[in-house]
Amino acid sequence: MAFNFESKIFTKEKVQFGPDTEYIVRGGRHIFPLVPKALEGIHQIGVLGWGSQAPAQAMNLRETLEGSGIRVVIGLREGSSSRQAAEKAGFTEEGGTLGELFAVAKASDMVILLISDAAQAEIYEELFKVLKPGATLGLSHGFLLGHLKTQGKDFPEGINVIGVCPKGMGPSVRRLYEQGRDTEGAGINSSFAVQQDVDGKATDYALAWSVAIGSPFTFMTSLEMEYISDIFGERGILLGAVHGIVENLYRRYVDQGRDRKQAFRESVESITGPISKAISRGGIIGLYQALSPEARREFDKAYSAAFHPLRDLMEEIYQEVASGNELRSVILAGNRLKTRPMPILDNTPMWKIGKEVRAARVEQEIPLNPFTAGVYTAAMMAQVSILASHNHAYSEIVNESVIEAVDSLNPYMHFKGVSHMVDNCSTTARLGSRKWAPRFDYALTQSVYPRLDEQTGADQEILKDFASHPVHQALATALEFRPSVDISVQQ
Amino acid sequence: MAFNFESKIFTKEKVQFGPDTEYIVRGGRHIFPLVPKALEGIHQIGVLGWGSQAPAQAMNLRETLEGSGIRVVIGLREGSSSRQAAEKAGFTEEGGTLGELFAVAKASDMVILLISDAAQAEIYEELFKVLKPGATLGLSHGFLLGHLKTQGKDFPEGINVIGVCPKGMGPSVRRLYEQGRDTEGAGINSSFAVQQDVDGKATDYALAWSVAIGSPFTFMTSLEMEYISDIFGERGILLGAVHGIVENLYRRYVDQGRDRKQAFRESVESITGPISKAISRGGIIGLYQALSPEARREFDKAYSAAFHPLRDLMEEIYQEVASGNELRSVILAGNRLKTRPMPILDNTPMWKIGKEVRAARVEQEIPLNPFTAGVYTAAMMAQVSILASHNHAYSEIVNESVIEAVDSLNPYMHFKGVSHMVDNCSTTARLGSRKWAPRFDYALTQSVYPRLDEQTGADQEILKDFASHPVHQALATALEFRPSVDISVQQ
Repeated sequence: MAFNFESKIFTKEKVQFGPDTEYIVRGGRHIFPLVPKALEGIHQIGVLGWGSQAPAQAMNLRETLEGSGIRVVIGLREGSSSRQAAEKAGFTEEGGTLGELFAVAKASDMVILLISDAAQAEIYEELFKVLKPGATLGLSHGFLLGHLKTQGKDFPEGINVIGVCPKGMGPSVRRLYEQGRDTEGAGINSSFAVQQDVDGKATDYALAWSVAIGSPFTFMTSLEMEYISDIFGERGILLGAVHGIVENLYRRYVDQGRDRKQAFRESVESITGPISKAISRGGIIGLYQALSPEARREFDKAYSAAFHPLRDLMEEIYQEVASGNELRSVILAGNRLKTRPMPILDNTPMWKIGKEVRAARVEQEIPLNPFTAGVYTAAMMAQVSILASHNHAYSEIVNESVIEAVDSLNPYMHFKGVSHMVDNCSTTARLGSRKWAPRFDYALTQSVYPRLDEQTGADQEILKDFASHPVHQALATALEFRPSVDISVQQ
Repeated sequence: MAFNFESKIFTKEKVQFGPDTEYIVRGGRHIFPLVPKALEGIHQIGVLGWGSQAPAQAMNLRETLEGSGIRVVIGLREGSSSRQAAEKAGFTEEGGTLGELFAVAKASDMVILLISDAAQAEIYEELFKVLKPGATLGLSHGFLLGHLKTQGKDFPEGINVIGVCPKGMGPSVRRLYEQGRDTEGAGINSSFAVQQDVDGKATDYALAWSVAIGSPFTFMTSLEMEYISDIFGERGILLGAVHGIVENLYRRYVDQGRDRKQAFRESVESITGPISKAISRGGIIGLYQALSPEARREFDKAYSAAFHPLRDLMEEIYQEVASGNELRSVILAGNRLKTRPMPILDNTPMWKIGKEVRAARVEQEIPLNPFTAGVYTAAMMAQVSILASHNHAYSEIVNESVIEAVDSLNPYMHFKGVSHMVDNCSTTARLGSRKWAPRFDYALTQSVYPRLDEQTGADQEILKDFASHPVHQALATALEFRPSVDISVQQ
């Protein structure tokens, strides 16, 4: 994959991401003055919805564009329950920054569609009808393209269609932007894509949008690559895999006789605390290198038993996403959700104990369990390996498999448990996480632990592949662009 | 739904199945002489494949048709690894009863396609080309119709297309046929369907086939209703649900402090032994009525907490099947299976303990745990409720949700554990069971047990619906037609 682009406003840099040569744009507050220039011709940005991404992006856009004359207006459906929240955030009808969804879409030069995937599937035909000729439709992931494809349809002609896809949930996009006021470099990276460009401005519109919401760096992808990696990633290591893994490890440690609180520390706390932190600071290989020789032996055994079974499951998920099955499932689920809500994830004894553990937590004393680290890392590397085998660019791979996990999502589980992580994400993500977490759990019990019992030692071939994988170099490059920042999840 | 048909050979009976009036044909050895008459015009039946259904049906057909002049010939793909097994069962090239798949299809008047679903998807175009004009294509479930539909295709014109779909795995179809030599009424019920009838003979061909393989009674459905209920049912109570439930209950009982062997008895053994037996003999309500007042209170609590969460999951599965998603998943998995086998289900500590438990089993001492019974019955009733809400006929509902479970499948798990049950079924079933079992497990932990802890007593509304459900009447009718027979699973 070699994505390339030209910008009239922003500086493009050539970067070596592991084996890939890619082009990126570095963000930062010092180039915020370029944003209004790049948005030439746009007087109003309509942000539709108020879910996970919409509040974050709308507030960041408004703050970046302050004084530029470009208005950011929220569009909500009649009777939306989010109205109060939007008003509380300063978007009001009186101020001309809050209105009915289709009316806002009709009046905006750029329309950023951030309602839920299921809602997008419901209203897109109506929306396409009201867009101004020459308007720019912005998406924060490629779901709608995937949905149109399963229907044999396409976007209307005569409009720009661009994507800017933050590699983190909405609340992180907002929190890190706020932290960026003091900490240069804080922010969530984004990918961008140009699906349709009717006036030659689409690329700069997309880059401006990405810089404005605070992306430390922006890399290019296609909307199709994006939605596959996004929907796959959240079913994988970002939400589904990490949830299934901690449920299983917690039970395993209890079953081995550990005290329940200690089992929670050695599973959940270990991943969301020291393991995530080590990866965030030094990459996956940095985590490994920091282990003692004895801990490495434990890691090696777990990693080499877990890698292949988890990779097989990841390949299944990838194919289910790429085939359109997962998108169809989300649409079907959307209808059921109208009468039956999703199951609550943390209403179980394990997560109640977790609450007690967090209340008494001493951050520095959280154990880094090397067995836990081996299993978790195997899942992460399995995802990397699947994305690479399907030709995703390494910038996308490291953001979707590593950085988003340790910098954006795990901190939410660390703060308040699994629901706080999963249910702060999109409906599509919440559904997918619930669907696949149990499969990761069973894969450990049925395939990984029996291997562990059978194997005489770690599999050196698998460990060699781990140590020499190009992802480590790609991740090191990404870390240079976006220094590790401890996200402040307390609101 | 009101299916009706006319037969020139067999006696049609009008039956009240719960709220439905349906038409059936009773089988039995005394009407085997009618089979060759009904197969008028057919000189050779080609049975393609040698998986779960093919050996059973081919051997039963051959035995029933002995002396009739109608030959039963097995067709296998070049280099098939099943060749020896077919020869061992007496199908040989020298005898003219074993040949290459397409050659056999070309030479047969009736072609019963019993290769795996994934293989059907691969070869159907080739197969359609070689069929004689006016030939009869027989299917044992509607997968191929579903697959054609997802491709926007149809069966070729000019041939009969019929289905005879035994409500039990192949080995049961054979074992009960053998037991039927001494026990009148032993056998697996089948549904039948006529998808295309070019010569007016399709209905009698289908009924003859069903009687010949030993169906105690044969009821009508459509191929579409059949494949949905079949693929749904095996993901539900027949395989996926019962597997997920016993994994979870075993862990729950261990977690509550029970000895591991006792936990296995109170979960797996309880369901595959006394619970299945009670349902087989007296229906679901018979199981309930046999409980002591104290046991009923335990059952009631479990049932009323479990019913709605499990029903929600069943509805999700139904929609995934009806939308074609499950069929597409099976095709995708077929390719992966060429290099990576499915995970082994019973290579875990739980199932190793189960082996010890079975070795020391005293059948009469297996406990009937009322909590286990409540959860299991809730899953069964949830499936019944979903099928009824989607307008399946009650004959199909009771066979696909109750009789197949307790008389055909659970006995295999009773004999040798979960793999012996699941992996004796079709590839489609084995995949689906592995996919959904973990979801049932998580549904119990996340949604059922929290309700149990919260509820002050059982939910009387749910229990009233249970007691008054029309399925009990329908099941009583089905039991009249097919007396309970203890399947002998030892080969």
